[in-house]
Amino acid sequence: MFGDNSCPSPCNTLGFLQKNNSLEEKGRLAGQKNLLSCDNSDRDARFRRTETDFSNLFARDLLPAKNGEEPTIQFLLEVVDILTNYVKKTFDRSTKVLDFHHPHQLLEGMEGFNLELSDQPESLEQILVDCRDTLKYGVRTGHPRFFNQLSSGLDIIGLAGEWLTSTANTNMFTYEIAPVFVLMEQLTLKKMREMIGWPSGEGDGLFSPGGAISNMYSVMIARYKYFPEVKTKGMSAAPRLVLFTSEHSHYSIKKAGAALGFGTENVILLSTDERGRVIPADLEAKIIDAKQKGYVPLFVNATAGSTVYGAFDPINEIADICEKYNLWLHVDGAWGGGLLMSRKHRHKLSGIERANSVTWNPHKMMGVPLQCSAILVREKGILAGCNSMCAGYLFQPDKQYDVTYDTGDKAIQCGRHVDIFKFWLMWKAKGTIGFEQHIDKCLDLSQYLYNKIKNREGYEMVFDGVVKIHSSDLLFCHSHQVAPKIKAMMMESGTTMVGYQPQGNKVNFFRMVVSNPAATQSDIDFLIDEIERLGHDL
Amino acid sequence: MFGDNSCPSPCNTLGFLQKNNSLEEKGRLAGQKNLLSCDNSDRDARFRRTETDFSNLFARDLLPAKNGEEPTIQFLLEVVDILTNYVKKTFDRSTKVLDFHHPHQLLEGMEGFNLELSDQPESLEQILVDCRDTLKYGVRTGHPRFFNQLSSGLDIIGLAGEWLTSTANTNMFTYEIAPVFVLMEQLTLKKMREMIGWPSGEGDGLFSPGGAISNMYSVMIARYKYFPEVKTKGMSAAPRLVLFTSEHSHYSIKKAGAALGFGTENVILLSTDERGRVIPADLEAKIIDAKQKGYVPLFVNATAGSTVYGAFDPINEIADICEKYNLWLHVDGAWGGGLLMSRKHRHKLSGIERANSVTWNPHKMMGVPLQCSAILVREKGILAGCNSMCAGYLFQPDKQYDVTYDTGDKAIQCGRHVDIFKFWLMWKAKGTIGFEQHIDKCLDLSQYLYNKIKNREGYEMVFDGVVKIHSSDLLFCHSHQVAPKIKAMMMESGTTMVGYQPQGNKVNFFRMVVSNPAATQSDIDFLIDEIERLGHDL
Repeated sequence: MFGDNSCPSPCNTLGFLQKNNSLEEKGRLAGQKNLLSCDNSDRDARFRRTETDFSNLFARDLLPAKNGEEPTIQFLLEVVDILTNYVKKTFDRSTKVLDFHHPHQLLEGMEGFNLELSDQPESLEQILVDCRDTLKYGVRTGHPRFFNQLSSGLDIIGLAGEWLTSTANTNMFTYEIAPVFVLMEQLTLKKMREMIGWPSGEGDGLFSPGGAISNMYSVMIARYKYFPEVKTKGMSAAPRLVLFTSEHSHYSIKKAGAALGFGTENVILLSTDERGRVIPADLEAKIIDAKQKGYVPLFVNATAGSTVYGAFDPINEIADICEKYNLWLHVDGAWGGGLLMSRKHRHKLSGIERANSVTWNPHKMMGVPLQCSAILVREKGILAGCNSMCAGYLFQPDKQYDVTYDTGDKAIQCGRHVDIFKFWLMWKAKGTIGFEQHIDKCLDLSQYLYNKIKNREGYEMVFDGVVKIHSSDLLFCHSHQVAPKIKAMMMESGTTMVGYQPQGNKVNFFRMVVSNPAATQSDIDFLIDEIERLGHDL
Repeated sequence: MFGDNSCPSPCNTLGFLQKNNSLEEKGRLAGQKNLLSCDNSDRDARFRRTETDFSNLFARDLLPAKNGEEPTIQFLLEVVDILTNYVKKTFDRSTKVLDFHHPHQLLEGMEGFNLELSDQPESLEQILVDCRDTLKYGVRTGHPRFFNQLSSGLDIIGLAGEWLTSTANTNMFTYEIAPVFVLMEQLTLKKMREMIGWPSGEGDGLFSPGGAISNMYSVMIARYKYFPEVKTKGMSAAPRLVLFTSEHSHYSIKKAGAALGFGTENVILLSTDERGRVIPADLEAKIIDAKQKGYVPLFVNATAGSTVYGAFDPINEIADICEKYNLWLHVDGAWGGGLLMSRKHRHKLSGIERANSVTWNPHKMMGVPLQCSAILVREKGILAGCNSMCAGYLFQPDKQYDVTYDTGDKAIQCGRHVDIFKFWLMWKAKGTIGFEQHIDKCLDLSQYLYNKIKNREGYEMVFDGVVKIHSSDLLFCHSHQVAPKIKAMMMESGTTMVGYQPQGNKVNFFRMVVSNPAATQSDIDFLIDEIERLGHDL
């Protein structure tokens, strides 16, 4: 494909990239013109694919190498060809979700796909083959029948945003180095705070590398709020602090408890009702109990959209208790935060405006590419107070611009990836109403699935349908062994993907996640039929 | 540009994307063929740009929309056109490094570039303009005259790797969801451990969202090694622990001390020699002192390539002391780890094989796009021991494949971005020797700069040149105010970028970073002349 230059097409004769000099010249000409004009010289500045022999080209031949421009552009266009073909196939229901192989199979090497690294370089032809194979043996998380994770779907605007982000290849710590991205982050966080309902969208926040880190931030700043001396003196300066979170909450609260020096035993798990929602009376009882034992309650996490049941804790009732006992209220809306975009469904997070901090992952229900998670804080300045170390080489106070835009010292990270652009671009492209429509559609689909499953033989709902359906819905099969077996066959056949797990005293059941914008009712139908087909002979 | 369909070119007549059906058909045909063949149907499956009017197209018209394939491909190709033009300009010395504007200017809106988000969607034409403007007002971190940060350069293979990563849009927690990437991570980490010198490359590790988080991991696992009960019972189960690190070390060690509940006062700073290297005798004295005061020394961080001076602490001498007092030795090689790739320079990290853990950021000196940082650990299993919470919905023990490849529970994150692919692909494309050549070239350039500055009027070295030059080099001007003023003018003129800071009793000086593969001796010359030109009238 790459090695054969004997296949000229009329297009090639137009290829301005064939001569480096002419490219540079025309590029410069184009640079002087209005970007929105459409005249000949501008069209000339566009790339044209040429048949390139990559078998004798290596990384060292690309920019910044001398005469590296043409191979660079041609190589990138070849990669884009692979990627756009992958995008097309991702949305094509006649393709598989995955082509499963066991670890030992991939490690042994598949038809020229060798994962081992070596001292010597490989040709760009081989690199392109490696790119194809990497996609071939991966999982199409944007496939309409991929329901396996809370993050799914392949948003084209978000994808374009990520491509641009990696091309800009910069870092969020200072305005100096990321002026546009830093401002986008500030404006977007403000908009998110407005949707939470904090007055005028005031407050603080950051994008972090995921919901677990965002939740960790919430515990850190709660501790700093009540016991700021822990920053300098350590946990020995504080009494024995306890945190409260639902038995159904995400494990990151316990991870934060372990990492930050509280200890997992001091993360007290709250009982839930049959739908997986925290029972407020249990919270109050456990606060009183902890105080009687001499512990100091510090922090309560309310989950808005739990990981398995998709349950929404009653935030207002929890907030009442937090106010009564002067505790920090965090809402983990990593999964359910997206419902704030929907006028129809945002009531499920009613009371969130009373929270001191909120985790909200646009990379989950809102379909933003990974990673995109925000920690939002009602009190301004507390993130910086908690985390700043004032490194002189980054945060010089004597810069020529307003250094309040240098936000890096608020983070526990130093370098911080640009997670904002894809999200900002998606918001621009869809508008708030676009996100709203997506959320509403997901919840409609979830209702559709619920109605189908409810009375269907062979399926049983994990909990009763009296409570409202959320966008994570559940179904289960008859014995503990069935779900793993069906899942194994599903992986081998590659037709669809859905997760399973046990929970409490319930046996293994499937956890259906509807967040994929490509999924339709017919895909839901397919999943149900496929589970039956695969389970037929069990 | 986008609104005009009246510019047909011969190419358009070949555009198989103009009819959705024919695309699908040919795509399928192509899919049945050997990927490396070069026949007509295969060439037909390649994309062709067509003139598309994006002013009436919106995000909702893209895939998964019905008939969304053509606009999707055309939109992505238009974005790629913007990006490839940006790549070309990045390497063009006749362009600026940045086009500086103050925050208030960008916030007020620049010629149709409006950062505010709204309820209604914008056309794809506007989205493309937004992409252009975002790049226009940003900083070209890959420009040959960008010396401002430890991360610089724009590696084309790495860029292609990032584009693929965002297209795959998956998550590192399980083999199920990222089979190829999980294996690439394991193989690459093993290779890195081999270069550190741990027997057979055994051990453990993870890619984390940056060096600060990697360093935080090292403190967490050190604590878990000596006081595992802290995981469940919190810091109150341990004696008063102290950490040791250089006064020149990265601030993330102190941040970790604050976050993990040690307290910054229990992060004891070690004195350094004139070159910024830890004085081992000072470490031993401070260990003895801490013990006498009843504290328990736990952890020593040795820096391999300090942030400002580029200093390498004497690892072997520090390791001797750590062994004597039974302390965890961490080497923060975020910046200097890349030197392990160079047979000529790796001796600067001599003794690193004695470390218990190592931070190494390929996104710094090795030029891998952001983010790419590894925490490497000598003892296998301790990362999982420290961090695992065994969430049932992700880490089911009854899967059909070998679940030891489900590495997510080792992390403090849940979702974890795929940082490995771009690095793996660069390693494939360059080979170890390609990285070695890059490192050697950076250090040669640094020596070149040193020789030029040494005897030049108007400049003064921050420290004497008797010690070996590393890849971060320093120069400074005569009074505290000069560097900030020159930097301000440099930002306004946009011709080059270099950082400055004070350190200890030294006034503001420039910190020169040579890690950009595009930089040559002429760019070093340019920088020196430019600083003189800008400072001429001060």
